[in-house]
Amino acid sequence: MERKLRMGMVGGGADSFIGDVHRKASAIDGMIELVCGAFSSNPEKSIASGKALFLPTERCYGSFEEMILKEKERPEQDRMDFVAIVTPNHMHFPPAKMALENGFHVVCDKPISLTLDEAITLEKIIAKSGKLFALTHNYTGHPLVKQAKAMVAQGDLGNIRKIQVQYLQGWLATSVEKTGQKQASWRVDPKRSGIGGALGDIGTHAENLVEYITGLKIKELAADLGKFGDGRVLDDDGNMLLRMENGAKGTMSISQIALGEENNLAIKVYGDKGSLEWRQENPNQLITHKLNAPIKIFTTNGPDLYPEAVQVCRIPAGHPEGYLEAFATIYKNFATHLMAVLDGKNIKKPDYPTVKDGIRGMQFIYAAVDSDRHNAAWTKLD
Amino acid sequence: MERKLRMGMVGGGADSFIGDVHRKASAIDGMIELVCGAFSSNPEKSIASGKALFLPTERCYGSFEEMILKEKERPEQDRMDFVAIVTPNHMHFPPAKMALENGFHVVCDKPISLTLDEAITLEKIIAKSGKLFALTHNYTGHPLVKQAKAMVAQGDLGNIRKIQVQYLQGWLATSVEKTGQKQASWRVDPKRSGIGGALGDIGTHAENLVEYITGLKIKELAADLGKFGDGRVLDDDGNMLLRMENGAKGTMSISQIALGEENNLAIKVYGDKGSLEWRQENPNQLITHKLNAPIKIFTTNGPDLYPEAVQVCRIPAGHPEGYLEAFATIYKNFATHLMAVLDGKNIKKPDYPTVKDGIRGMQFIYAAVDSDRHNAAWTKLD
Amino acid sequence: MERKLRMGMVGGGADSFIGDVHRKASAIDGMIELVCGAFSSNPEKSIASGKALFLPTERCYGSFEEMILKEKERPEQDRMDFVAIVTPNHMHFPPAKMALENGFHVVCDKPISLTLDEAITLEKIIAKSGKLFALTHNYTGHPLVKQAKAMVAQGDLGNIRKIQVQYLQGWLATSVEKTGQKQASWRVDPKRSGIGGALGDIGTHAENLVEYITGLKIKELAADLGKFGDGRVLDDDGNMLLRMENGAKGTMSISQIALGEENNLAIKVYGDKGSLEWRQENPNQLITHKLNAPIKIFTTNGPDLYPEAVQVCRIPAGHPEGYLEAFATIYKNFATHLMAVLDGKNIKKPDYPTVKDGIRGMQFIYAAVDSDRHNAAWTKLD
Amino acid sequence: MERKLRMGMVGGGADSFIGDVHRKASAIDGMIELVCGAFSSNPEKSIASGKALFLPTERCYGSFEEMILKEKERPEQDRMDFVAIVTPNHMHFPPAKMALENGFHVVCDKPISLTLDEAITLEKIIAKSGKLFALTHNYTGHPLVKQAKAMVAQGDLGNIRKIQVQYLQGWLATSVEKTGQKQASWRVDPKRSGIGGALGDIGTHAENLVEYITGLKIKELAADLGKFGDGRVLDDDGNMLLRMENGAKGTMSISQIALGEENNLAIKVYGDKGSLEWRQENPNQLITHKLNAPIKIFTTNGPDLYPEAVQVCRIPAGHPEGYLEAFATIYKNFATHLMAVLDGKNIKKPDYPTVKDGIRGMQFIYAAVDSDRHNAAWTKLD
Repeated sequence: MERKLRMGMVGGGADSFIGDVHRKASAIDGMIELVCGAFSSNPEKSIASGKALFLPTERCYGSFEEMILKEKERPEQDRMDFVAIVTPNHMHFPPAKMALENGFHVVCDKPISLTLDEAITLEKIIAKSGKLFALTHNYTGHPLVKQAKAMVAQGDLGNIRKIQVQYLQGWLATSVEKTGQKQASWRVDPKRSGIGGALGDIGTHAENLVEYITGLKIKELAADLGKFGDGRVLDDDGNMLLRMENGAKGTMSISQIALGEENNLAIKVYGDKGSLEWRQENPNQLITHKLNAPIKIFTTNGPDLYPEAVQVCRIPAGHPEGYLEAFATIYKNFATHLMAVLDGKNIKKPDYPTVKDGIRGMQFIYAAVDSDRHNAAWTKLD
Repeated sequence: MERKLRMGMVGGGADSFIGDVHRKASAIDGMIELVCGAFSSNPEKSIASGKALFLPTERCYGSFEEMILKEKERPEQDRMDFVAIVTPNHMHFPPAKMALENGFHVVCDKPISLTLDEAITLEKIIAKSGKLFALTHNYTGHPLVKQAKAMVAQGDLGNIRKIQVQYLQGWLATSVEKTGQKQASWRVDPKRSGIGGALGDIGTHAENLVEYITGLKIKELAADLGKFGDGRVLDDDGNMLLRMENGAKGTMSISQIALGEENNLAIKVYGDKGSLEWRQENPNQLITHKLNAPIKIFTTNGPDLYPEAVQVCRIPAGHPEGYLEAFATIYKNFATHLMAVLDGKNIKKPDYPTVKDGIRGMQFIYAAVDSDRHNAAWTKLD
Repeated sequence: MERKLRMGMVGGGADSFIGDVHRKASAIDGMIELVCGAFSSNPEKSIASGKALFLPTERCYGSFEEMILKEKERPEQDRMDFVAIVTPNHMHFPPAKMALENGFHVVCDKPISLTLDEAITLEKIIAKSGKLFALTHNYTGHPLVKQAKAMVAQGDLGNIRKIQVQYLQGWLATSVEKTGQKQASWRVDPKRSGIGGALGDIGTHAENLVEYITGLKIKELAADLGKFGDGRVLDDDGNMLLRMENGAKGTMSISQIALGEENNLAIKVYGDKGSLEWRQENPNQLITHKLNAPIKIFTTNGPDLYPEAVQVCRIPAGHPEGYLEAFATIYKNFATHLMAVLDGKNIKKPDYPTVKDGIRGMQFIYAAVDSDRHNAAWTKLD
Repeated sequence: MERKLRMGMVGGGADSFIGDVHRKASAIDGMIELVCGAFSSNPEKSIASGKALFLPTERCYGSFEEMILKEKERPEQDRMDFVAIVTPNHMHFPPAKMALENGFHVVCDKPISLTLDEAITLEKIIAKSGKLFALTHNYTGHPLVKQAKAMVAQGDLGNIRKIQVQYLQGWLATSVEKTGQKQASWRVDPKRSGIGGALGDIGTHAENLVEYITGLKIKELAADLGKFGDGRVLDDDGNMLLRMENGAKGTMSISQIALGEENNLAIKVYGDKGSLEWRQENPNQLITHKLNAPIKIFTTNGPDLYPEAVQVCRIPAGHPEGYLEAFATIYKNFATHLMAVLDGKNIKKPDYPTVKDGIRGMQFIYAAVDSDRHNAAWTKLD
């Protein structure tokens, strides 16, 4: 490939948190350039956002439909290659569908859609389109998460018996949605978030991380959800029991009312030969144990990592990589794949999350909500 | 009081872990001396154990019955004041009952008894005897656990919403009970341990810590227990959902097969005004949060502690106190109480666990086992 | 500004560590695009490096002289705006001088030059040119380093009394320079590194961090340098006593033979009202103390930060920022300044290191080497 | 031995910190009982202190001279076996000398004496007396300090190159000695402390730890001492360069005005094969490195420790041991030695500090003060 990939963005205007993340993450590795965007459904706002990003006015669109159709009309050497969708949940499916059906590849934020049906439909649309689709379960991009996955896959932990996963935040401990905070207002609104609140926003990350690292499916769960915030109709807290397909058991605790917590995603996995622990807030250490041996801690780009981890390290050990770098790895692997496709090369699909992860996430949300409605009855995920 | 209290011990022979702990813990504060013991049901072994402890042969007894009766016959200025029971669970109730009925006060290891019935019976025996009874839920002796309790009581956390508690060990990850390891062999044996395995050994500590710190009762739980060790009939692992009497929700995870874990008891409590986190393996820090404020960490004997915490600190901040010191605080508070009683003084009962904690522990074990038998159905604790 | 700034790079070919860092760091915030480079003194290598970065062949130059002259000839709407110099130390001054004298702004890696004389000369060249010059002391870009500086400036620590700074690495613990490792080979070579080894590579960072955070100059130092690696002529280790201009005292320990250390830059500052501690390997926490108060820990983008820190945070608290983000902040602030200059706007200079930091760094190296030659005699820094 | 050892105490009255520590530490292992004391030079205070410890009035003496003479007159089966000296520094030598010359063994707090001369004289007195003498450099009692020493001795670190040691406290950050705080008032008084302030109180611990773990002598040092507290005549802060006998180099930083620090004694040792790090405030972890290997952390009583460490562990891994347990190990090893001596058995001297450690400590203090007087000139330790 002799040029960078060209990205168009749906959503991600001035107030957006995740739009800015996608832009920074896609820029780090120098493989992608932002060429256009439908940053807002208000055309003036979209143009203002685009100008601040040094885009020409004519490529700052007032709707994703306009963007897709206008870009499609542009000459091939200039037109965007793929769409990045960074809108609230209810606006994932429509632009994804339209982009794919008009020949554009897609990167989409999680959860994949508003409903499970949409996710299943999207899988078919993707298949039919022959285009690439990446879902930004960004935490799987950390080198030591890849190391964890590789350790389990290599049998270093033996047979998995026990899992603890948590994703704890405190930013909804008070009723911030009533103060006009934009991030909060759509997340507590079922029309824009879907049937899961914390479940969709952070629970899907926890679920994805469990299945990614262990290579095991969650077979069933028992969920006790909380709605602690005044007047909330969606869950802002949840406690779950997990049973994995291989007989392992575990707990999941998620919360957005865990006052004082910032972004405490953490996982422990115990097997009959070893165990491991990873914490997102200090992502450059992976604490591991073997039977009757001292604690061993792996570090990002440090000694003795598996190739899967080394491959995605960017800087020498001791130079901390963070949230944006892990996010960037999703983009980098997607871009590597897309460049090969555009070059007509046949490569092994690089490791990034796809529609299948999206469907699992929606199954997880649905199972948890259903279990909770039945007083935490065991509920299967498919 | 012009003399130390005199302690007789039941159990705690050469191979015992917990007997040695009780001896060291009771010795630290210089208020108690060991004067006799029934260290083993084998008289020679009991004498050998006693001699190693510098006891005279005639006060090394071959059975608790002998000890109680012989000591009772000794002149008052010489006779033991109380009995410390450090045997496996099935041997808690018989010596406790006999000691109390023969005029001796009792310190007993946890869980309080083999069955819930025994615990309830014991409560009546204690009441009738008028003697003191302490249960060694030692973790409540840590200064920062007392600080945590005081913070909740003072309203620093506001209304409690969420609890996470775990007690994770890995020493039963393999079948050590088949290697002749004495600690393991009785703990996996229902005749000596009761209906709970890990539940009784460590789960009761987790339950006690939750109720002690929050001042809230666990109303009901849903338990999914594991028996991962080859051929085990008792639980060696457990995952639970908790619902507290005030509407708070939580998770409990306990395990003795969590390979690599040493003694990882930890608790997090989240309210609507603040939150706290305490970890047994680094017990000299209490991590706390207030809404929109930086992390604040209290240290043992450090600045700004509540009196309940300061009272039980022994050495200046920065000089770590450990497991034995917390254990010693149970003994110290019990001894302070007993000395007052023997001196005919009327004092407010110092803070140490009693038969009520013991009954709660047994209710917890029973509820968890019952819930697990019903596929983790919600089960009340009384 | 309606467009991104255009950057040309000197150095940073295929094997370079720091060139890649500069590219990624300058890309994150979307304000800068790489348009050309003299990546190698070998034209083919330069072209190969540039192609991998999606640059056109005609803007991949075989020397910095060629780049500067050819770019100067390009039309203004297309020509590079500034040069980023990422070569070994001996190649900092020549391209910086030539770029400035031909009308280009400069970003330069540290230490600023091979000799102190060059640094002093460069200051004059910069002044005469009227161009901007930034030195990439990247660690000052961390939000919590800015918070530390602001706390000292606001008097939160009172009068500074004591400083501990260390910068410890272990990658030269063995003779890697003899294995053909490119990073190592030039760093142990006085022709390319100058009179300081570890002093120049990491000591200048430590020195800069001390003076940046405390706002105090190091008045004099006593240095005991080590040359532990077989056959090394430059220091690979150093221990120093520091005396600050206000009477504060301290220690500095630097090493590249501290086996096991990755990139352990850490600083503690103690005043008579408060103290603080920051560690590069976990840069998202700033541990602080006030007299008779519990530990208070600030977090990146967390509560109660000073504006100077908040301004440079990119993502919500709990989402770790790392090495590249701090590095990017140097570029971002430089770019903000340069855009204002190009737009003809007069703004307060944003906070980024300049030639003055570079001169201090050279004075530090010279003083340390001189002190060491005199058996660690006290030596002034100017 | 069929009985506990009998201890008499000099100092350690009501206000004493360290007297209480000695009593608790000597009690933990059940080998020693306190039988008498000269707790204060005020006889009533001494009696009041003794009564609170359950001692008979007749064995609460008004002076150490009285205690030594009266105890000597008691029948052998009842008389104290050894004296524990827990007074301020100026009162170490007189009772030690008298006790030894009257046939009593001695345990003495550090630093060993007021002057170096006293220490050298004491060595001769001990030799002449044939009695045992232990110096309570308690930090050498930690299991993981013993592990560290064993690792160096076994060559796990290879040739030692670099050492960092610090002992930082903040309790003298303000002029607490003017508030009547007893601990502070004698420590800032050269008549009672000697020529070193922080040097004697904590510097000797740092020095002892360095030489204990590395098995290397400090050859020379360059010390820059601070007297930050208003009106202080003794050092309350110090920064030093170290040169070891084998060519290793290092830094030592000590302080009692490092505001916010509690008892931050920490050491790092780097060799050409490995390195280690131990921190007193979390003493149950020893962080180690080998070339090109992940971090390995040993835990108290955890896997793979050397026998020297295992021997001094008391409770299972994960049950934190603290300051008192390490202190107790000095007493335990001394008691083991003394019991053997009293039983007429010939055993290898257990590992506890002796007069030789005391002399090294005094040489260290003298060298540091001397160096400081000469503007941090290099000064030898003998």
